[in-house]
Amino acid sequence: MNVLIVYAHPEPRSLNGELKNFAVQRLKAAGHTVRVSDLYSMRWKAPIDASDSLNGDAERRFDASQDSRRAFASGLQSPDISAEQDKLRWADALILQFPLWWFSMPAILKGWVDRVYAYGFAYGVGEHSDARWGDRYGEGSMVGKRAMLVVTTGGWDSHYGPRGINGPMDDLLFPIHHGILYYPGFDVLPPFVVHRTSRIDEVRFTSICEDLGQRLDDLWRTEPIAYRKQNAGDYEIPALTLKPDVAPGQVGFAAHVVWPET
Amino acid sequence: MNVLIVYAHPEPRSLNGELKNFAVQRLKAAGHTVRVSDLYSMRWKAPIDASDSLNGDAERRFDASQDSRRAFASGLQSPDISAEQDKLRWADALILQFPLWWFSMPAILKGWVDRVYAYGFAYGVGEHSDARWGDRYGEGSMVGKRAMLVVTTGGWDSHYGPRGINGPMDDLLFPIHHGILYYPGFDVLPPFVVHRTSRIDEVRFTSICEDLGQRLDDLWRTEPIAYRKQNAGDYEIPALTLKPDVAPGQVGFAAHVVWPET
Repeated sequence: MNVLIVYAHPEPRSLNGELKNFAVQRLKAAGHTVRVSDLYSMRWKAPIDASDSLNGDAERRFDASQDSRRAFASGLQSPDISAEQDKLRWADALILQFPLWWFSMPAILKGWVDRVYAYGFAYGVGEHSDARWGDRYGEGSMVGKRAMLVVTTGGWDSHYGPRGINGPMDDLLFPIHHGILYYPGFDVLPPFVVHRTSRIDEVRFTSICEDLGQRLDDLWRTEPIAYRKQNAGDYEIPALTLKPDVAPGQVGFAAHVVWPET
Repeated sequence: MNVLIVYAHPEPRSLNGELKNFAVQRLKAAGHTVRVSDLYSMRWKAPIDASDSLNGDAERRFDASQDSRRAFASGLQSPDISAEQDKLRWADALILQFPLWWFSMPAILKGWVDRVYAYGFAYGVGEHSDARWGDRYGEGSMVGKRAMLVVTTGGWDSHYGPRGINGPMDDLLFPIHHGILYYPGFDVLPPFVVHRTSRIDEVRFTSICEDLGQRLDDLWRTEPIAYRKQNAGDYEIPALTLKPDVAPGQVGFAAHVVWPET
């Protein structure tokens, strides 16, 4: 299979750098083909702007989504954007690897999402009407592909637990899992999270690699998070709210996941 | 009072640009002093890296937080970073204004947070021990200052409602409200959110400006979101989980807010 790792860390000799190298080797050893978008070493341009369209008209009012739509449809996107889109088309699985900075991804990775996720490619796909709100949340260009986050944090597991002060990790990652990965159609696997990165000795590093290796070996077997599909009957359209009989009374992120009956 | 608006939109002639101009005028007319960090026009550098420390040693392994600590403590930060920190010291209130892209802030604004929020300035402040986990979440360098988000989205209100498909807006903004603003000590006001930005005519624009104007007039009167202070007894230290008798049985973001008794 083809695996794309989009990796965002400024220091190759960091824990993130070592884990990325480990992942590449493990996946290759298992017979997969691996490509890495190392955003820092590529000097990835983070901010979306008018220069992302080669047909940009400096006099025209710039509109991030309409300019993106025009450039994508006419093949006039900046080449760095279309190259990443080609990698996504090629990939059977996507891994986003990054340190959690301020409870989200580093700016350079957010800029990869903002720019590569063009209108017509990652959103604005499919019929948009009162009866159907596009191919998204379970449908879209990435259907059939899998995605997984590999995330490091300085804090402790408990700080990110169900009652931890930072908020539960699953909720902090929901905007990425559901809003960035599930939105264009990826099947989203549970994340691989490493806590307390400043306290990693050789023993712990070995154990982290073993766990990560297992997750990579299981990439095509692991059950994805069971998010609800937008267009399969659970949501009112166009309000896009859960129907009253779906997860009745429940609010918040967890209501968008189908939990096993208990 | 002194108000700093950190503004992230690539097009001055956009709705965001007009709302920013409106806010500046309204605040000035009320007698406040206003400064704007217009990140796109400043060509703000988004990715944090070794060049952010003027004493950077190319041979040394770069560590985002340790390098930030050294540069902040020794006055050897990149001047664009220290200039923004000076603005934050000067400000009585901070407004972050941006379009919600992929359920979070634009990359250029995330890069402002990643770089300006130095170790010793926004984190790593105060005593760190088994009994006290720093001055944060209600304490820290920004205590006494207020902060508010001004956010625009293309989607409908209902898509961001309690049972909306994107997740509730309050939960999507929690990592920013709590993790970025409350963390270094800001009092965080409820956000000002504009939905359905592609459907704004003159009548609606006028009404949006009236509402935003009211929020700006009330900037020093509005009740902040009642997040729980880390060091005031609600959390176990160092686990940093809510004590069993605090919001008993509750999990998730909302458990970190003190709700009025019903």
